[in-house]
Amino acid sequence: MSVLLSPQDARALIWNALTGSGTAPENAGYFTDAILDTELSGLEGHGFYWLQYYCAHLRSGKVDGKAVPQIEALSDTSFRVDALHGFAHPAIEAGFKHLIPAAKAHGVAAMGVHNSYNAATLGFHTGYLARAGLLAIGATNAVPNLAPVGGKTPIIGTNPISYAVPAPGGEIAFLADQSATQVAWTAVKRAAEAGEPIPLGWALDADGEPTTDAAAGLAGSMAPAGGVKGFSIGLLVEVLCAALAGGKLGPDQGSFTDDDGTPIDNGQFFVAFDPGKLSGGGFDQTITKLVTSITEQDGARLPNARREANKQQLAERGIPIEPDLYAALKGFA
Amino acid sequence: MSVLLSPQDARALIWNALTGSGTAPENAGYFTDAILDTELSGLEGHGFYWLQYYCAHLRSGKVDGKAVPQIEALSDTSFRVDALHGFAHPAIEAGFKHLIPAAKAHGVAAMGVHNSYNAATLGFHTGYLARAGLLAIGATNAVPNLAPVGGKTPIIGTNPISYAVPAPGGEIAFLADQSATQVAWTAVKRAAEAGEPIPLGWALDADGEPTTDAAAGLAGSMAPAGGVKGFSIGLLVEVLCAALAGGKLGPDQGSFTDDDGTPIDNGQFFVAFDPGKLSGGGFDQTITKLVTSITEQDGARLPNARREANKQQLAERGIPIEPDLYAALKGFA
Repeated sequence: MSVLLSPQDARALIWNALTGSGTAPENAGYFTDAILDTELSGLEGHGFYWLQYYCAHLRSGKVDGKAVPQIEALSDTSFRVDALHGFAHPAIEAGFKHLIPAAKAHGVAAMGVHNSYNAATLGFHTGYLARAGLLAIGATNAVPNLAPVGGKTPIIGTNPISYAVPAPGGEIAFLADQSATQVAWTAVKRAAEAGEPIPLGWALDADGEPTTDAAAGLAGSMAPAGGVKGFSIGLLVEVLCAALAGGKLGPDQGSFTDDDGTPIDNGQFFVAFDPGKLSGGGFDQTITKLVTSITEQDGARLPNARREANKQQLAERGIPIEPDLYAALKGFA
Repeated sequence: MSVLLSPQDARALIWNALTGSGTAPENAGYFTDAILDTELSGLEGHGFYWLQYYCAHLRSGKVDGKAVPQIEALSDTSFRVDALHGFAHPAIEAGFKHLIPAAKAHGVAAMGVHNSYNAATLGFHTGYLARAGLLAIGATNAVPNLAPVGGKTPIIGTNPISYAVPAPGGEIAFLADQSATQVAWTAVKRAAEAGEPIPLGWALDADGEPTTDAAAGLAGSMAPAGGVKGFSIGLLVEVLCAALAGGKLGPDQGSFTDDDGTPIDNGQFFVAFDPGKLSGGGFDQTITKLVTSITEQDGARLPNARREANKQQLAERGIPIEPDLYAALKGFA
């Protein structure tokens, strides 16, 4: 039986685990918000589940919870953030303090983060920019588990891309947040841990053949969403996060899970547009019309509709957490 | 039997058809290059085939071949281009004259085009930016043929997105150019014209069911690549090209084919990044390493490998064109 946590209790659990394991308080606020938002969105594989790794990595020194991200302004609209082997979240938050006013002043601004860490739910970051009134696109790279189409050796990660569309009053009209793979790597990893099979089409074995064996999939390659097109989007993410932002290429990164003392050192990239400046004034009206054309169709939904519905339900009913994981996270406090 | 044209003869055919139908010479150069590049890339559905529509639309006044695109600088890095119901190509070319130096000076720059027309092969435009040394992302929207996942009524077009990665010396390291749909709409249209069936998975009929009947697919909806993820990328393209750039939403656009006097008035959007400024210096080295990790695998290839191979072959052997289409295009000269 899962334990049910109120948002307040969940927030305290996250904050205490992070700071209790060595995260500086000034690095823990935005990060706590992100993990709580992830759990409220129903993305349970990416919230509490990953928090246990963050805490273990803090204690071993794989990640530096006290790193003070360094920001280099390359121009009035381009920023390079060195996470200094600390968490991605404080580095992203620090960069956004420059990115947001720059995009508002000039219409567009861009920011890369290197020497970084697991950015977790990318949509939290793009959603943050949308709440600030910006149209945002974000990307993060990761250790390889996706082979190029026609090949067998993974060279890029699930490499999610996210975009978020602002609505008046600091709201989000809609957002998307999706990996280049048919499903998130976490889904296969959790199936392997539980000894459960996976559906055909999620992963390929080491010979490049489709498999229902989760462990064989982990040892092989994830399947790209939409074949060559999914791989191509993942490759764009790699270009943005490694070549442009200066994060390490997937094969050169440290493990996201193994507590081996080696930092991940991946990268993130964000570009933000100010609709008020670029659109000539019609942005909100056009977005409303576009949203209506989807929501008025029976059975159709916006990309983030499920997350939004979960947020209302889980805030009321409580956020479920497995007792073992709950105990482990309390132990990190 | 197809006629085979040398690149020189193909160029003359395109130039003469465009200018002979009412395109101002100053609007025809970049456009001719784009159509020739498309045919050399082996994308025959998008070169000569569309040229006959361009010429008919010129003669009827659906598109204004003499429009002088107007450029509004919203800031030192953000540009809004009004194609004034002329072709997309001269508007994009005119905007790039501002976008390229702005991206090089500031690291990032963005540009939207509205009151526009069929941008044809999007990868030509992003490739042009890559040859200028920039990492480019481009998008164009189109008349609706893609329904939201779960719905039946198309609200967005095949909405391609393209990116191009620069290499030293004005070369392109690689580029991708892909529709949000499983296949290009042209593929289904040409099958319907030929009375041929289409593979399952390309399109849905008007009831939202998979179909092998090309005509039923045209009357229904295209299938998104990778399901919800493909639709989501197409939706981003719509946000960029309609809400941000100010092009009309898909359902409000004029037809791309019907010679009905109504301008298309869609939109394009481009964002360009200067790797030299943003990356801190390691861009080319990282791209080389990434490219090698793909090309060294048996059976794996870069996204544009087929187009590049076609370019060499077709330049040598000649570009094939059907006699009827050849005669029609000569008739427009």
